[in-house]
Amino acid sequence: MNDALKNKILLAHGGGGRLTNNLITSRILPKFGNEILAELQDSASIELDSASVCFTTDSYTVKPLFFNGGDIGKLAVCGTINDLAVAGAKPVALSLSLIIEEGFGLDVLDKILASAAKAASEAGVCIVTGDTKVVETGAADGIFINTSGLGTKLPGTNLSFAQIEPGDKIIINGTIGDHGMTIMSQREGIKFESLLKSDCASVAPLTCKILENPDGFKFMRDPTRGGLSATLNEITAATGHSMKLIENNIPVNPSVQAAADMLGFDLLNIANEGKVVIVTAPDTADKVLDLCKTHPLGTDAAIIGQIVASEDMPIVEVITKVGGSRIVQMPYGREFPRIC
Amino acid sequence: MNDALKNKILLAHGGGGRLTNNLITSRILPKFGNEILAELQDSASIELDSASVCFTTDSYTVKPLFFNGGDIGKLAVCGTINDLAVAGAKPVALSLSLIIEEGFGLDVLDKILASAAKAASEAGVCIVTGDTKVVETGAADGIFINTSGLGTKLPGTNLSFAQIEPGDKIIINGTIGDHGMTIMSQREGIKFESLLKSDCASVAPLTCKILENPDGFKFMRDPTRGGLSATLNEITAATGHSMKLIENNIPVNPSVQAAADMLGFDLLNIANEGKVVIVTAPDTADKVLDLCKTHPLGTDAAIIGQIVASEDMPIVEVITKVGGSRIVQMPYGREFPRIC
Repeated sequence: MNDALKNKILLAHGGGGRLTNNLITSRILPKFGNEILAELQDSASIELDSASVCFTTDSYTVKPLFFNGGDIGKLAVCGTINDLAVAGAKPVALSLSLIIEEGFGLDVLDKILASAAKAASEAGVCIVTGDTKVVETGAADGIFINTSGLGTKLPGTNLSFAQIEPGDKIIINGTIGDHGMTIMSQREGIKFESLLKSDCASVAPLTCKILENPDGFKFMRDPTRGGLSATLNEITAATGHSMKLIENNIPVNPSVQAAADMLGFDLLNIANEGKVVIVTAPDTADKVLDLCKTHPLGTDAAIIGQIVASEDMPIVEVITKVGGSRIVQMPYGREFPRIC
Repeated sequence: MNDALKNKILLAHGGGGRLTNNLITSRILPKFGNEILAELQDSASIELDSASVCFTTDSYTVKPLFFNGGDIGKLAVCGTINDLAVAGAKPVALSLSLIIEEGFGLDVLDKILASAAKAASEAGVCIVTGDTKVVETGAADGIFINTSGLGTKLPGTNLSFAQIEPGDKIIINGTIGDHGMTIMSQREGIKFESLLKSDCASVAPLTCKILENPDGFKFMRDPTRGGLSATLNEITAATGHSMKLIENNIPVNPSVQAAADMLGFDLLNIANEGKVVIVTAPDTADKVLDLCKTHPLGTDAAIIGQIVASEDMPIVEVITKVGGSRIVQMPYGREFPRIC
């Protein structure tokens, strides 16, 4: 083999033959090694604790691949774990499927896989099955990763839109917009990008802790693409109830705010990757807030608003810092390609 | 919106905002409509019959997107179902995750989704969770699809390499190379491409039927990328046993053979998408063969060889049509990018 090609992904790495096997056994298995994956069967065989499961999927196309606070590997693991966590599940197993552009550096791939493996290990989740495809140069942008996740439902949890009612409190576990503004700032090359750091993290340790006593919990969702605006508008659309937020109560990192102001973005529309929006009964809210604040994933947690009866169309209303009122709409979605 | 853009995928379709919602509610949900998916939760919530599950994933990058006998949508559903089926599972639920290039035709997307929905419905499998990402023009080649699959293990099945021993018979349920040669012929534009048709199909109806009585069944695998050569070499490598095939017994469609001869390919290396290699105890083989032959997915089934004790290194040996012998190696994998 040509020396220049030795350290690159080749089309044959995805051909299902000898080079695919080499890639899997020399670079992938050692990082994710667990008994189930090591069997290299067509499907992973798993004995779950319960037949009540949660199942989710996400493809990750984030650009740049590496950003302050994470990379596509960590993001792909944490993002999918979070979708299980907010559904009230204990994450158990992930799949990992790679689409790689021919010529991609094997050293870069190694870093991404190591990061994914570390994130999975820290979350106590096994990557049990996978796939690798290679497409020719120009047919993909570096690497895309899909992870799907399997979890078992935590006992006693019954999270659903249907439970939400006027008076319920809305809690978030920390500052908003950190992930999206980190990505956008790196892309735009703004000066203080080094002050920004993605919040990319698995929220499962926090959600599982909270759900040890699930009384009063109505709903959780992670405000990723589309930011808090999208998540809150999804809740009002699904429940028919409105929502009143207090802007002063929404935690924001000042550097993130400065970057958003400079680039002209509304932080409510900006993606988060380590946040969870929690809707609880009013008498449970303070307990949850305390629980969040004593957990490393929730030190900046706050009650940011409440569900209110809808007069006409359900809306998300924000009481602004100066005491005015504005309506937060579902973002159109155009400004933020490849944020996750 | 510009009229020319009305029928195309835009970056905003992947932004997690209003346009993403429109795409999901107007084009995706109606095709895959089921109660679980319709809840649009972060994770699908499923009550399984059993806590013994199989979990698998595959990304599909096939080129061209449409081919005689199928398309990327059908392939993505059948391929993942097959990975569950050969593991001895009853396929239950699939995820469907799209990475789409900006500018991709909405009409083409509709056709692909409709085809995926039809394949899932025919297999009795629900698509319960999904994701849509859009990347800018030039960052992907049209559309890539990931499906992950969840199934429950069929009772009494215990398929594994460890059970395979000398004397066991090797059965395939029909002709080899149809999928790969259809794709390659369409790409090369060879004259008789219209005679070729991919075998793209879900083999679960056949494998579930066979496993109603699992006695004597040792192992199954679908010979996709890398073809029969890769699958058989994986078996010899994992078991340490060798294998003797009778070339005359391997079912081949004459048009597929002609295309392979013309393009210079060994059909043993060519991908299949509706085939299963079955290893059974010798006294079960005839029963399985009869069962295959009376099933629509196995009319051309044949016993193609047997496991033999390994003298030195485990090898896959083929007794050729003229009575000679050749060794079939694991293909390198270079010749067949984007076959699935």
